[in-house]
Amino acid sequence: MMKEPIFDVAHLAHIEIYSPKVEESVWFFKEILGMEESHRQGDSVYMRAYEDFYHHTLIITQNEEAGLGHVAWRATSPQALERRVLEIEATGYGTGWIEGDVGHGPAYQFTTPDGHKMEILWEVEYFKPNEEQATPLLNRPQKRPRRGVPVRRLDHVNVLAKETNKNVEFLENALGFKVRERILNDDNTDVAAWLSSNSLVHEVAIMGDALAEKGRLHHICYWYGYPQHLMDVSELLVEHGYKIEAGPGKHGVSQAYFLYVIEPGGNRVELFGDTGYQVFDPDWKTVEWKGKDLEHAIIWYGSNLPQEFFEYGTPVRKKAAAPIK
Amino acid sequence: MMKEPIFDVAHLAHIEIYSPKVEESVWFFKEILGMEESHRQGDSVYMRAYEDFYHHTLIITQNEEAGLGHVAWRATSPQALERRVLEIEATGYGTGWIEGDVGHGPAYQFTTPDGHKMEILWEVEYFKPNEEQATPLLNRPQKRPRRGVPVRRLDHVNVLAKETNKNVEFLENALGFKVRERILNDDNTDVAAWLSSNSLVHEVAIMGDALAEKGRLHHICYWYGYPQHLMDVSELLVEHGYKIEAGPGKHGVSQAYFLYVIEPGGNRVELFGDTGYQVFDPDWKTVEWKGKDLEHAIIWYGSNLPQEFFEYGTPVRKKAAAPIK
Amino acid sequence: MMKEPIFDVAHLAHIEIYSPKVEESVWFFKEILGMEESHRQGDSVYMRAYEDFYHHTLIITQNEEAGLGHVAWRATSPQALERRVLEIEATGYGTGWIEGDVGHGPAYQFTTPDGHKMEILWEVEYFKPNEEQATPLLNRPQKRPRRGVPVRRLDHVNVLAKETNKNVEFLENALGFKVRERILNDDNTDVAAWLSSNSLVHEVAIMGDALAEKGRLHHICYWYGYPQHLMDVSELLVEHGYKIEAGPGKHGVSQAYFLYVIEPGGNRVELFGDTGYQVFDPDWKTVEWKGKDLEHAIIWYGSNLPQEFFEYGTPVRKKAAAPIK
Amino acid sequence: MMKEPIFDVAHLAHIEIYSPKVEESVWFFKEILGMEESHRQGDSVYMRAYEDFYHHTLIITQNEEAGLGHVAWRATSPQALERRVLEIEATGYGTGWIEGDVGHGPAYQFTTPDGHKMEILWEVEYFKPNEEQATPLLNRPQKRPRRGVPVRRLDHVNVLAKETNKNVEFLENALGFKVRERILNDDNTDVAAWLSSNSLVHEVAIMGDALAEKGRLHHICYWYGYPQHLMDVSELLVEHGYKIEAGPGKHGVSQAYFLYVIEPGGNRVELFGDTGYQVFDPDWKTVEWKGKDLEHAIIWYGSNLPQEFFEYGTPVRKKAAAPIK
Repeated sequence: MMKEPIFDVAHLAHIEIYSPKVEESVWFFKEILGMEESHRQGDSVYMRAYEDFYHHTLIITQNEEAGLGHVAWRATSPQALERRVLEIEATGYGTGWIEGDVGHGPAYQFTTPDGHKMEILWEVEYFKPNEEQATPLLNRPQKRPRRGVPVRRLDHVNVLAKETNKNVEFLENALGFKVRERILNDDNTDVAAWLSSNSLVHEVAIMGDALAEKGRLHHICYWYGYPQHLMDVSELLVEHGYKIEAGPGKHGVSQAYFLYVIEPGGNRVELFGDTGYQVFDPDWKTVEWKGKDLEHAIIWYGSNLPQEFFEYGTPVRKKAAAPIK
Repeated sequence: MMKEPIFDVAHLAHIEIYSPKVEESVWFFKEILGMEESHRQGDSVYMRAYEDFYHHTLIITQNEEAGLGHVAWRATSPQALERRVLEIEATGYGTGWIEGDVGHGPAYQFTTPDGHKMEILWEVEYFKPNEEQATPLLNRPQKRPRRGVPVRRLDHVNVLAKETNKNVEFLENALGFKVRERILNDDNTDVAAWLSSNSLVHEVAIMGDALAEKGRLHHICYWYGYPQHLMDVSELLVEHGYKIEAGPGKHGVSQAYFLYVIEPGGNRVELFGDTGYQVFDPDWKTVEWKGKDLEHAIIWYGSNLPQEFFEYGTPVRKKAAAPIK
Repeated sequence: MMKEPIFDVAHLAHIEIYSPKVEESVWFFKEILGMEESHRQGDSVYMRAYEDFYHHTLIITQNEEAGLGHVAWRATSPQALERRVLEIEATGYGTGWIEGDVGHGPAYQFTTPDGHKMEILWEVEYFKPNEEQATPLLNRPQKRPRRGVPVRRLDHVNVLAKETNKNVEFLENALGFKVRERILNDDNTDVAAWLSSNSLVHEVAIMGDALAEKGRLHHICYWYGYPQHLMDVSELLVEHGYKIEAGPGKHGVSQAYFLYVIEPGGNRVELFGDTGYQVFDPDWKTVEWKGKDLEHAIIWYGSNLPQEFFEYGTPVRKKAAAPIK
Repeated sequence: MMKEPIFDVAHLAHIEIYSPKVEESVWFFKEILGMEESHRQGDSVYMRAYEDFYHHTLIITQNEEAGLGHVAWRATSPQALERRVLEIEATGYGTGWIEGDVGHGPAYQFTTPDGHKMEILWEVEYFKPNEEQATPLLNRPQKRPRRGVPVRRLDHVNVLAKETNKNVEFLENALGFKVRERILNDDNTDVAAWLSSNSLVHEVAIMGDALAEKGRLHHICYWYGYPQHLMDVSELLVEHGYKIEAGPGKHGVSQAYFLYVIEPGGNRVELFGDTGYQVFDPDWKTVEWKGKDLEHAIIWYGSNLPQEFFEYGTPVRKKAAAPIK
């Protein structure tokens, strides 16, 4: 009889990114993407989209170089948290408990084999709107902002890894993620994989780092859900001199209607214009793209991806003289 | 410590509706909603939307009166199926196993307390495209049809019940559904409740039957995900003389961008034009609408619902002289 | 041989509305509809949408009662202006030249037979963006604002008249407007008519005043062109407590995807979410709606219009005890 | 005093294209773009979009090579037609009257200086729907088709010319077109120009032929008006193996939301997903793109144009060894 799926990770709770230009990054997320500032403490600014229910989903922390701070996952219960901690500890990648942080309670910290910092937690603080923010739409945490073209919620994170497979297996085995889609080399090793713990096609993607670096961030993604909003935000981005790296266009993998932009700190941000498709089938067979099928994997239609898309990550590193493919 | 959530139901697998005009119903689903016919057997026609992965998601069965045949849920594993069967049996609403049916394996049948027929199953047959239907988009089961304005997948079912609470509790306790939103009377009894087993705001809704009938269907819902498609299909509906009961408009509850139409057999069909919002929080507090908040619960903006919306269900029954509110 | 069409009126240049709450009106047009304030002088605030090329397209003037100030038409040339002035003078509805006003040169003033104040002019002042407003999109007068859901340009004006036909004929004969569509009574008298001097289906509509008043305003209309923007602005309108009178929905007449809202001063504002259709045929046969066809004239699909839509205008007047139909 | 503008050309009436694969071309326009076949005669098939009011707007004629057959303009009156014929005759590019053809009356034929065949006419035959096609939407000539993603109307034609300026001046002087936008070389000679006789930004564009050929077609364009439809038709195009050359994306020039595809006969077809902007100002100053501004002229955002876009036209010619820029 098949092994039962693991339901211990509920979803992506928040992401910390590093920025050498925190104020410019905050302006971008606030005035262009319509996000809200929740809190400031030390070198960090805490932000959220208007349909994010928790205290924050993004932390922007001052740092000399751009890059990924950490990624936090919420467990589906205190018991699920305990189970996952045991599994992570067994892998040797655990780094231990913290008592809590701004907006959440105790969290168990660990890294991926590639070194991306992550944590898993149960207790969260919910966002509470002030009088002006309060909305009569009871399933929405606050009014839709009147600034920019406001994103609705955090969607996913995409990281680069020196060695894809090892990291994918870690997420599958220690955390219970399912691989929804993968791009394969001819020898069936992973080029990239898209994983989720819920019905989203992916909450985390792992792509091979073309520069063979470790622990880099490819992009974080916020969600609109309406294709028109990618057109609308493109107007603001172009007129305000931000760099659209690619999009709008539609990926084959995940069917995401995408737009990629570089925020002032240097990190790539994806904006997601529809819902792609969702995986409700509990016995989902991973979609595998290889060989001749690859033609449609990256771009189903619309804007192509520049070469930079496959090399640029944060922290920024130069391409080696003899690039590793 | 909190009780862990149940993850034994994966999602809504298919729905059977009754139609006194099967061929006209099939024409509607095929030529207007762009659905595909999978199979015919006995008095039934089996259909699916082009992004439905299973053999079928809709069965239209010849019957003197319109109404609900049955609703099928897929379990998350064989073990989950066994657990749910034990729970259902314990409620006394179980009616026993069938060996299988067109497109799926063994299913355990039961009814809601109100009498709606349901079943839960594990083994399913997947749709296999023929040569002309095959698409290079590997995460899509077949090409997008060139007919009508094609819906993408089955979304949810909404049933009327004489007594709401009892049925909601049955779905919660026996099947592990979570109540995402509810509309309450002043005495806190349920007017209606929206439940799901996954991140969709609802896969099943239960609304009090204004005519105090039992076992009736309010509507089934197929998903577009793109608001423009509600405009597009409205053009076809009006020009072909179908009755749009309400919409496009946006509900407060579920944030669904909706369109309601009566199919030729008499059943109400909802078409869902966006994604509404989704529930990823494992500790979701049910959104409760009552009193003055109700103003925004039904209609957030757009088309109002006619009185008929609150009384008409299938099979069609006349309103009593002294209507039960 | 057919008489040649007249091409002397180019388009609707600007509209003045009266508001008893100028600051609240300005806040609405600026913060919700994303319009720009161009100038303030005396009791008036001058505004424009971001794709309006002239100095202003809207004047909001302090007044005890809401209503229409005046409507300005731009001629297609100085010669065309002269020709129209002669024709208007001949009708007896001319009231004479003014030397110029904020944002434009000499204008010839007149009224419709019903008493709506209008003017026709040639010389206009163009909007010049400041450094921050300047955009690299050379065919756009300024950057898209980051406030609200910004409308793109002035579209049309709709006035109520005690006697429709007489006013329609005045616009046809004195100004050269063409009647694109009309709704007729059984005796073929006009209920309402939609006229334009260019390819828009209408720049001005005249509807019979159900209260038999003279000179009232039904609504002014600004254009989005994208259906999603009606959904987006609806979010802001509902959350900020503005009254959506009707929409989004699609008219049969003009095929306009509409939204009607009452601005804080009391005037009705339409927001236009697509392009409807356009009339390029120089020999266009007026579309006539009467009898059984009327069912689809007002609403093609979507939100219905409340009774208020057919009676409410500015200045606000009470319905007579015995309403004139 | 300024010279009055000429209003003698009303709009683009129809286009004839040549196809070496007529049946495949017809299938494409019918099954993918949802167009209707009006008539067949000799080597030609006559087609129209569902909101085209005339008998046809496209003629596909069997020919060894793809390319432009002819372009037809409708005058604004019989008198306007006479005036234009006199002007054209004076240029020496007139080729004489024909008595009429399928769907229209007498037409005066001429060529551009570059050799593109054109005609101007007054009398047209209107499309009359059969019973099944008839719609209750009286301003629409027929029901929206249920096939493909149906385009709504013919929009414009774009031709390549060996020498841009001479052809632009011909259209200005002989026909009264106005130049709405132009791209200029550093010496202020035209690279390309966009012209119209009505409020559309362009009904005809003339671009310098990179291969220094004469009389070639760059593309014809049909209009959707809704951005989503470019996404929808892209699905059909990719799944059916048609080549999307570029898009969806938004041009700076004209603000058109575009998609370019090669039809089976080899001709490029643009699909227009919004309204861009319109020119109502009778004193419009031509927008001029040159030098550093050019960066935003071709692509405002979205898909880039491949090099092929600037070289490929029909009939297909090879690039010379030393290409003329």
